[in-house]
Amino acid sequence: MTAPLLTEIDHVAIAVNDLDASVQWYADTFGATVEHRERVESDGVEEALLKVAESYIQLLTPTRDDSPVAKYLATKGEGLHHIGYRVKDVDSVLQSYVAAGGRAIDAAARPGSRGTTVAFLHPKGALGTLIELVQE
Amino acid sequence: MTAPLLTEIDHVAIAVNDLDASVQWYADTFGATVEHRERVESDGVEEALLKVAESYIQLLTPTRDDSPVAKYLATKGEGLHHIGYRVKDVDSVLQSYVAAGGRAIDAAARPGSRGTTVAFLHPKGALGTLIELVQE
Repeated sequence: MTAPLLTEIDHVAIAVNDLDASVQWYADTFGATVEHRERVESDGVEEALLKVAESYIQLLTPTRDDSPVAKYLATKGEGLHHIGYRVKDVDSVLQSYVAAGGRAIDAAARPGSRGTTVAFLHPKGALGTLIELVQE
Repeated sequence: MTAPLLTEIDHVAIAVNDLDASVQWYADTFGATVEHRERVESDGVEEALLKVAESYIQLLTPTRDDSPVAKYLATKGEGLHHIGYRVKDVDSVLQSYVAAGGRAIDAAARPGSRGTTVAFLHPKGALGTLIELVQE
């Protein structure tokens, strides 16, 4: 038995072509407002976080052509990109996952946006879902 | 200005080929357990809901070949299928959305799983995202 590790759906990430227009769409449609906005140069993305209860909607757009999100948009178009699960200790969950034969994108926990610590698991072997582990 | 309408990320839905195996994967990997499981014959799906704080991970598999989820799996494979946003009054949000020119799949709110009331918006015009409005 694995003890319960997920404390919150940290965020749902949506890849979009135009960040400002997408923020406006969420404002007009649902009255959702931006809690945090950040360029993450290492990932080649700019994101806007809209807070919903203790979770976020993360609108995500590429800042350069070789960003993985640029490739995603070019092949699949706008839509659900990944899901962030909040955990207490990213590195512990990551290392257990890898030790059990799971495939990760990040070999070790690393800095994410808004001061978090994160690691991505690979969609292959994870029900086709790109999963980001997030520690606040 | 639209007043804030989203009270929770109700669920993130993941289309899977094998519901039992996927439930087991979440149990083994994250210690997540099934809070509710239901066949929704009208939608041609069986779902398992794993509770995370006040949200759910919804694992979703088709029960017949003409289910929209069967078509999704056949063309895109397993992965993120839609997102459920919790609101206080689905019908009010739906009708305002349509009145403002938004495109919906459901013309009116209808029963969802676990006793909820739901309506789906169309991904076209919604940042490529299939959005389900959920009222508890």
